[in-house]
Amino acid sequence: MKNSLRVSIKVQLYDIDSMNVVWHGNYVRFLEVARNEFLSKIGFGYNDMKDAGYIYPVAKLDLKYIKPAMFDENLEVLVELVNIESFLKLNYTIFNAKGEKICKASTSQACVKISNLQTQFNAPEILKSIVKDEL
Amino acid sequence: MKNSLRVSIKVQLYDIDSMNVVWHGNYVRFLEVARNEFLSKIGFGYNDMKDAGYIYPVAKLDLKYIKPAMFDENLEVLVELVNIESFLKLNYTIFNAKGEKICKASTSQACVKISNLQTQFNAPEILKSIVKDEL
Amino acid sequence: MKNSLRVSIKVQLYDIDSMNVVWHGNYVRFLEVARNEFLSKIGFGYNDMKDAGYIYPVAKLDLKYIKPAMFDENLEVLVELVNIESFLKLNYTIFNAKGEKICKASTSQACVKISNLQTQFNAPEILKSIVKDEL
Amino acid sequence: MKNSLRVSIKVQLYDIDSMNVVWHGNYVRFLEVARNEFLSKIGFGYNDMKDAGYIYPVAKLDLKYIKPAMFDENLEVLVELVNIESFLKLNYTIFNAKGEKICKASTSQACVKISNLQTQFNAPEILKSIVKDEL
Repeated sequence: MKNSLRVSIKVQLYDIDSMNVVWHGNYVRFLEVARNEFLSKIGFGYNDMKDAGYIYPVAKLDLKYIKPAMFDENLEVLVELVNIESFLKLNYTIFNAKGEKICKASTSQACVKISNLQTQFNAPEILKSIVKDEL
Repeated sequence: MKNSLRVSIKVQLYDIDSMNVVWHGNYVRFLEVARNEFLSKIGFGYNDMKDAGYIYPVAKLDLKYIKPAMFDENLEVLVELVNIESFLKLNYTIFNAKGEKICKASTSQACVKISNLQTQFNAPEILKSIVKDEL
Repeated sequence: MKNSLRVSIKVQLYDIDSMNVVWHGNYVRFLEVARNEFLSKIGFGYNDMKDAGYIYPVAKLDLKYIKPAMFDENLEVLVELVNIESFLKLNYTIFNAKGEKICKASTSQACVKISNLQTQFNAPEILKSIVKDEL
Repeated sequence: MKNSLRVSIKVQLYDIDSMNVVWHGNYVRFLEVARNEFLSKIGFGYNDMKDAGYIYPVAKLDLKYIKPAMFDENLEVLVELVNIESFLKLNYTIFNAKGEKICKASTSQACVKISNLQTQFNAPEILKSIVKDEL
């Protein structure tokens, strides 16, 4: 397993706000695109989680905005797996086409067993076996 | 039953696009707010539908944009029930604070029985009993 | 000039609603992605329009939903140029990965001169020269 | 000036995600509604800022999700002004109808002079005169 991935995002017109830059709330969508692509790639995507009996609601979200992004820009989100216990934590760095850092972010997701809706503090075996000792 | 309702919408900053007016796609949210408030009021809101065993996916949506809407404007959506069979059809007229028509729209929703996912061409009894002969 | 284009859309988690399908309002974003990609490709993208002195607000939007779309599906939007006068009109057909038609739509955009905010009923020369006699 | 405000939010159908709760990214909209209502009330709303020659892009955003919110719930956002220099910082606590805390958040906004796009580390006089020694 490689514990990071770079995902491309093209800024759309509907992302742009009244200040002619990407509205700050839309970065949450960019993170989700990158997160799901990374998790799918390692074999623990949204549907894999559900098949294994778990959902992963976001418990914490932090964003730091460094530079604005404009319409039609090609951004790249670097997503990195940081932790799988007790929260699934990912860090994100967003770059613009010039390679400048424009945003840093992180998400922490709780692991919830679907059958009893209990929060799990240990990672499911399937995730442990994917990640092994790479963290 | 009164077959129409006026619902207030305040334009938010996140509604505004790069042309400094409400992004055309955001009107779909305004229609949904008005539709749900109207349907709840007559006793056939989203949860009432589900309790009765039905969902109502949108099958058709038409919008005509007449004037732009700006940040912080107080809009009013007039929603009117037009038909309950074979589609649940509602018409919408959106006014700005000066009383000018800024948008006209309509939605048609199919009635789908949850138990077998079959489209129903007759309205459920609960809806018929609400609407009676008012249409 | 080729007067149509096929544009790929991957359904994201944030597109999904409480019925576990793409929320009907999110298709407006899919149309915008396809429209901008098509218009950029023929040399009349959002920034080209602005450089030529025009904006193109959406005046009419029609959607017909045929089948639902699910999380993680790869959709394809076929966008076709229908008219450049008096409205810029495009038709859209959305297909799922099995090649089934899931949505049909059209948008009509007014041509507005930025300098005087007057609606234009003739297409700008730049657009005429691109389209020539292909419509 | 009162340095806090309680703002009501009704959860809409379009806020709901595939897990049947409010999608985590939509809370950013709730914060914006509350922030703008509070800032307008003290006389330093978006348009007041612009008239005074300033914009306030969001530089930092933190969210902690405690309990999920459901369709049709009436939420209340308590927004509190924490700082006006060097960042405009607000804290938010979101409550559900039972009075339970469901989310805590904060935003920090940089003050940017429109005329030269320089970040300001001192608050504009208009904001200082509103807040006086209440912080």
